[in-house]
Amino acid sequence: MPEPSPPRVLYRARRIVQFHETDAAGIIHFTAFLTYMEEAEHALLRSRGLSVLVETPEGRLSWPRRAVSCEFERPVKFEDEIEVAVSIQRRGRTSLTYGFDFTHQGAPIAKGRMTSVCCRMTDGAAPIAVPIPQAFLDRLEAEG
Amino acid sequence: MPEPSPPRVLYRARRIVQFHETDAAGIIHFTAFLTYMEEAEHALLRSRGLSVLVETPEGRLSWPRRAVSCEFERPVKFEDEIEVAVSIQRRGRTSLTYGFDFTHQGAPIAKGRMTSVCCRMTDGAAPIAVPIPQAFLDRLEAEG
Amino acid sequence: MPEPSPPRVLYRARRIVQFHETDAAGIIHFTAFLTYMEEAEHALLRSRGLSVLVETPEGRLSWPRRAVSCEFERPVKFEDEIEVAVSIQRRGRTSLTYGFDFTHQGAPIAKGRMTSVCCRMTDGAAPIAVPIPQAFLDRLEAEG
Amino acid sequence: MPEPSPPRVLYRARRIVQFHETDAAGIIHFTAFLTYMEEAEHALLRSRGLSVLVETPEGRLSWPRRAVSCEFERPVKFEDEIEVAVSIQRRGRTSLTYGFDFTHQGAPIAKGRMTSVCCRMTDGAAPIAVPIPQAFLDRLEAEG
Repeated sequence: MPEPSPPRVLYRARRIVQFHETDAAGIIHFTAFLTYMEEAEHALLRSRGLSVLVETPEGRLSWPRRAVSCEFERPVKFEDEIEVAVSIQRRGRTSLTYGFDFTHQGAPIAKGRMTSVCCRMTDGAAPIAVPIPQAFLDRLEAEG
Repeated sequence: MPEPSPPRVLYRARRIVQFHETDAAGIIHFTAFLTYMEEAEHALLRSRGLSVLVETPEGRLSWPRRAVSCEFERPVKFEDEIEVAVSIQRRGRTSLTYGFDFTHQGAPIAKGRMTSVCCRMTDGAAPIAVPIPQAFLDRLEAEG
Repeated sequence: MPEPSPPRVLYRARRIVQFHETDAAGIIHFTAFLTYMEEAEHALLRSRGLSVLVETPEGRLSWPRRAVSCEFERPVKFEDEIEVAVSIQRRGRTSLTYGFDFTHQGAPIAKGRMTSVCCRMTDGAAPIAVPIPQAFLDRLEAEG
Repeated sequence: MPEPSPPRVLYRARRIVQFHETDAAGIIHFTAFLTYMEEAEHALLRSRGLSVLVETPEGRLSWPRRAVSCEFERPVKFEDEIEVAVSIQRRGRTSLTYGFDFTHQGAPIAKGRMTSVCCRMTDGAAPIAVPIPQAFLDRLEAEG
């Protein structure tokens, strides 16, 4: 029986580790990976003409996170250039789970996941999950 | 002729240098001081029952910055406890300039200034400077 | 059969959501929770007379992360005060997995986990995992 | 008498305003400009084959800041693309003062200055200012 094929990579981003992202242990601070994940998600959306924050006649749509995780295999340091490959691990009715594979000079350094929920935002009230618009999905999964 | 007396200290905050605020040079990253300045401004306001962001019937009021500066005299490092004394250096019609004196174990480590402008915020348009409400000033300068 | 008892809370920290930790969706940015987790881990250690970064005759000891995760149940906003309760979920030979329960006014808002590995840090080389010193564990689990 | 000519632009960087750099007022948080200044300084150095942090036989050389300032003319928001032009405002024996001109779609949005001091870093002691190596200056001011 064949192996399930790995999820298709929708976007690749490159990023230099900035000085303010390092810490006194001399390496990258782990929160930088979470920041990179978000930046890569948004760059993927932009590459499709989409945005994570849009004002619509029915109110502001955004994508608060339901869950995030990251496993760190190897540290990187100031000015290392890293690559992150973004895929979609799971499509829900109101949420998307993205996968992030981080490499440095071809070697894996970290692996992350993030579940973002399509929500209507209302000032002073909790975000309300809404079905992901089909037009959004069509664009997102189009060839980059 | 007497020296002008230094501005009255309106608030004193204490803060431990966090690990994510250090960098690979082994000391605090300079942007942390700017963050501390903002945190101290907001803590001062809270101590007077005020906030830097309020929804009013006439719209959202907030205080974007017009200018910020900081001079660094001595570095501090992870887990050093620092103190910041907040004063008002200048009252304008629509703006306040705060002064921040940073010390560590009694020795000066940095000195900052920040000018915040009282603004009406409108989504999709530039903030509009408005006169600082008198009630805000009365509370701010009341004894802490 | 009885339920396993929940892990003992070793430390409770309180934290006000800062302005720079919010985003244009009007709520806390998710990376702030990861920052809070680290700050609470370090505050726990400090409360026991320990530190996450120590220089020893054998070199610098620190605790890079192997994994981190967080599930978000409810958003909070600027100036909300949140509480985080820290426990130990798992003791390994070289690593500790901390659990973090976030609440706001008594209601759960997020739940996190972080695995930190006791390492000898060497400039220009990968961190080397080393067994957690027994004295460290004894202090950590002493009554706060 | 002729106007003094403006300092030569040594480097131009482009940067998209990231979501985590916005705040609940709906615009960019002011600390992001300070971060951009540092990132542009470091990108300028990299473009010349230099780095802000180097290990040498005589110890670690880095560039702690002596002073930083920024004036904000116009806010920008999530996903705006801004440009920053870096020049040198002043060359000291041990320090460099950089100027930063920020624009968005050609219009000025902010103006910053940062004085960085060439220092030998020693763990557990204050940084010691040292003369800027001539080879560093030669490279820095070479045509980009």
